[in-house]
Amino acid sequence: MSETDRTKMKILQSVNPATQRVLPGDFAIATRAQIEETVARANEAWKVYKNLSGSEKATFLRTIADEIEALGDSLVQRAVEESGLPEGRIIGERGRTCNQLRLFAKLVEEGSWVNAVIDEAQPDRQPMPRVDIRKMSIAVGPVVVFTASNFPLAFSTAGGDTASALAAGCPVIVKAHPSHLGTNALVAKAITEAAEKCNLPKGVFASLNGEIETGQVLVQHPLVKAVAFTGSFRGGKALFDLANGRPEPIPVYAEMGSNNPIFILLEKLELEQDSLAEMIANSVNLGAGQFCTNPGILVMQKGKSTEVFLEKLQKAFAELQSAVMLNEGIYEAYRKGKTQSMSSSGVSALFEAKEDGEWKGAPSLAKVSAAHFLENSNLQEEVFGPFTLAVLCDDENQLRQVADALHGQLTATVMVTQEELEKASGLLEVLSQKAGRVIFNGVPTGVEVCHAMHHGGPFPSTTNGKYTSVGTEAIQRFVRPVTFQNIPDTLLPNALKRGNPLQIWRTVNGEKVRT
Amino acid sequence: MSETDRTKMKILQSVNPATQRVLPGDFAIATRAQIEETVARANEAWKVYKNLSGSEKATFLRTIADEIEALGDSLVQRAVEESGLPEGRIIGERGRTCNQLRLFAKLVEEGSWVNAVIDEAQPDRQPMPRVDIRKMSIAVGPVVVFTASNFPLAFSTAGGDTASALAAGCPVIVKAHPSHLGTNALVAKAITEAAEKCNLPKGVFASLNGEIETGQVLVQHPLVKAVAFTGSFRGGKALFDLANGRPEPIPVYAEMGSNNPIFILLEKLELEQDSLAEMIANSVNLGAGQFCTNPGILVMQKGKSTEVFLEKLQKAFAELQSAVMLNEGIYEAYRKGKTQSMSSSGVSALFEAKEDGEWKGAPSLAKVSAAHFLENSNLQEEVFGPFTLAVLCDDENQLRQVADALHGQLTATVMVTQEELEKASGLLEVLSQKAGRVIFNGVPTGVEVCHAMHHGGPFPSTTNGKYTSVGTEAIQRFVRPVTFQNIPDTLLPNALKRGNPLQIWRTVNGEKVRT
Repeated sequence: MSETDRTKMKILQSVNPATQRVLPGDFAIATRAQIEETVARANEAWKVYKNLSGSEKATFLRTIADEIEALGDSLVQRAVEESGLPEGRIIGERGRTCNQLRLFAKLVEEGSWVNAVIDEAQPDRQPMPRVDIRKMSIAVGPVVVFTASNFPLAFSTAGGDTASALAAGCPVIVKAHPSHLGTNALVAKAITEAAEKCNLPKGVFASLNGEIETGQVLVQHPLVKAVAFTGSFRGGKALFDLANGRPEPIPVYAEMGSNNPIFILLEKLELEQDSLAEMIANSVNLGAGQFCTNPGILVMQKGKSTEVFLEKLQKAFAELQSAVMLNEGIYEAYRKGKTQSMSSSGVSALFEAKEDGEWKGAPSLAKVSAAHFLENSNLQEEVFGPFTLAVLCDDENQLRQVADALHGQLTATVMVTQEELEKASGLLEVLSQKAGRVIFNGVPTGVEVCHAMHHGGPFPSTTNGKYTSVGTEAIQRFVRPVTFQNIPDTLLPNALKRGNPLQIWRTVNGEKVRT
Repeated sequence: MSETDRTKMKILQSVNPATQRVLPGDFAIATRAQIEETVARANEAWKVYKNLSGSEKATFLRTIADEIEALGDSLVQRAVEESGLPEGRIIGERGRTCNQLRLFAKLVEEGSWVNAVIDEAQPDRQPMPRVDIRKMSIAVGPVVVFTASNFPLAFSTAGGDTASALAAGCPVIVKAHPSHLGTNALVAKAITEAAEKCNLPKGVFASLNGEIETGQVLVQHPLVKAVAFTGSFRGGKALFDLANGRPEPIPVYAEMGSNNPIFILLEKLELEQDSLAEMIANSVNLGAGQFCTNPGILVMQKGKSTEVFLEKLQKAFAELQSAVMLNEGIYEAYRKGKTQSMSSSGVSALFEAKEDGEWKGAPSLAKVSAAHFLENSNLQEEVFGPFTLAVLCDDENQLRQVADALHGQLTATVMVTQEELEKASGLLEVLSQKAGRVIFNGVPTGVEVCHAMHHGGPFPSTTNGKYTSVGTEAIQRFVRPVTFQNIPDTLLPNALKRGNPLQIWRTVNGEKVRT
């Protein structure tokens, strides 16, 4: 097909960021009619799918994982070609993707996640009897998932958003990321085949290729009931505004930008300069700095040992390898953002790796006084890539001022010695008001997929800091509670039936019981 | 003070709706400076108050209840004068208000409501060790509460929103309802005195008088972190839009309008015409129809027994007493809304109680064919007052069509016989997709305050159907989860400490335990 034909026919193609060349594969932009049909089918599927048992949904999720694994090397190769990420990373990410699917399978198979709450009838209560009242969470309806470029598997087509929405009982419509269209197509096919093997309604999953407008049409469709998004602030906020402007507003769970500040207290800095410099430099450059938890700000007190530390950090940065970024847009945005930050008043560059004409993220380091930082809130705008800004404070008081001035964050980290714990207490208090996750003596990159993970901080790091996009509680985004009053057992969902046939944890008359 | 002086000095006064006369008491509109000071003080109070133990917060909540009870007859009299509601109702509502405060006291004293989730470290995990990760909910910050006119105590100054926000650890700023300024002042004083008795920071509670603009300034204040509202769709939606338009959007939990449809199946209608007619007429007229769960729509199949039922319902309506409505605005809106509905195409009046020049809600009944109802979605606009519209369907199929066409509702009710249970199953399924609470063989009025209550349905009945404004889970609106990673015990909140010193229910490595 010629370039003109592709434009006419609205065909998208992927580009290999390492070679800057177009990859084979034509991906047609969904037409309005296709979008309409897809959403209508998802809505029909919802009516059936939401009522499936936990074990039926679990089988589906596990079958998806199996199908993804069965794609074997072809998936890995395509993802490597489309993302520029190394093979080892993609293989690891595939493992995480399948583990997530199986984790949600286990969660819904067990079943307590529906938060069943029961207040039994009190026919003899005075002055008025109480009827039987039972509550549980049910799936809200079709969910649109906007996938992330930086995790072409784990935050993409069959990633955490899709896995948690399917686990909740919601059909999913994925808006494919233009950066990895081929990877998306392979995984989408795996999910579709899993749905067929499990005899599920066809609309339970769909993936659509498209441009910004495709996403806008999906978010505004009256049958769509929730949106999950991982990406830039601009993109997430635009969807949030669009969804709130609907005749029936719907929730947008957008995970957007974050600076993930690391506060290093003085003694820690003095005692562990070498290891801290190496640990931080590697965290900043991990995956070419393309993590939402990438540490973009380091906050510390001025002083002699701080000077020494910054020199060591500079050296550690000089030893980092520049890696190919995900696509041209991200590469250009990184250069622009970094330059903007570095040319801001009071900011001085400490290190900048050389550019070589490829789309590589050049690791870069700069410093600024806390006074300048506090004056210029633009310095809190996320620079997506291997860049970090050291903010130097006159004293502990100013360190606290910087903490107080922070915008909402996904994470905030404190580095301390055992002796500094008491000092860290006030700081921890402030940071827990600013971030969704606070960390001691560790880097923010590396988000554990578990029950206790909260990957979601106050705005602008997400549009809704009450919900996580990582870990089992991500499922809660796609349900709402419904109370059933005075309803006979035969018509109640199994999770609410008398005698607790599913043997799940329930809150009965205020007490947690499993009987 | 003369009327001109009052306008100049921005003084508000209450009106007794029964006598249509101004009541004693001048209530000054908060100035910008007062609003600013109030919010700043609330924010300072939050930093201390959010960290109080469950038993300290419980003592505060119980002291508020005690102080309200200590107001004795003066409170009851003022509330009666300002609301036009009968004394018995106000005394009952005071009981409910104090019970709610004590229910939340018990909840926070017990402590498990913080949803502590712990994944312990796995130092030997391959390929990478897992660090210790712990999560719990913490208070978001100052909350603005817009109180409801129709519950001058239970949904007002010390009502469910205030009680749940204070229980969560959030200071509360009440925007007093202009309909019961004196009642508000009395209760606000009781709360302030309770705060003093408990040695709490001054900013933990405040009440401000004002007009629409006062509320707008509060909602837009950067230190305000959440809003609770009970009232009209117009009011709630305006606040929702305002809050979403902030540089940092915040959640607005607005409980707005609802029709609370009652579906009556044919056999039920045939067998229980008399009791149903009486039950429904009384539910429609309860509190002059001024309940958010007031049944505004009755859906049934056409037929001979339906005709007989409607005649009986008409008679039951004729025997109802018109009661004084809460204020002139509500009275006028009721007249207008009712007239609008009754003059819509295909709607015919079945009964309209006579007006007597007072601000009384005249019980009124109308009917419309399902075909007309389905064509005109304006008929789904809530008419706040003792009005209900019977929607007559040709067959079961059309009954389902009406259910499918419903907007989001707080409640939906199905009336059936034992023999009709199976038929009701499909209907129940649809209604559980439309409402926050589905009810069998009972009226929607009367919202039980308990753990399993969900008082919050899909838009437009609320702005966020995931949350309830009644019952213990209302507390969840005012918190967000924070994950603590690798944090030593000394710095962890007690709810997350090793050894579980609070002995609360926690999810540890995926299992619910209390040890």
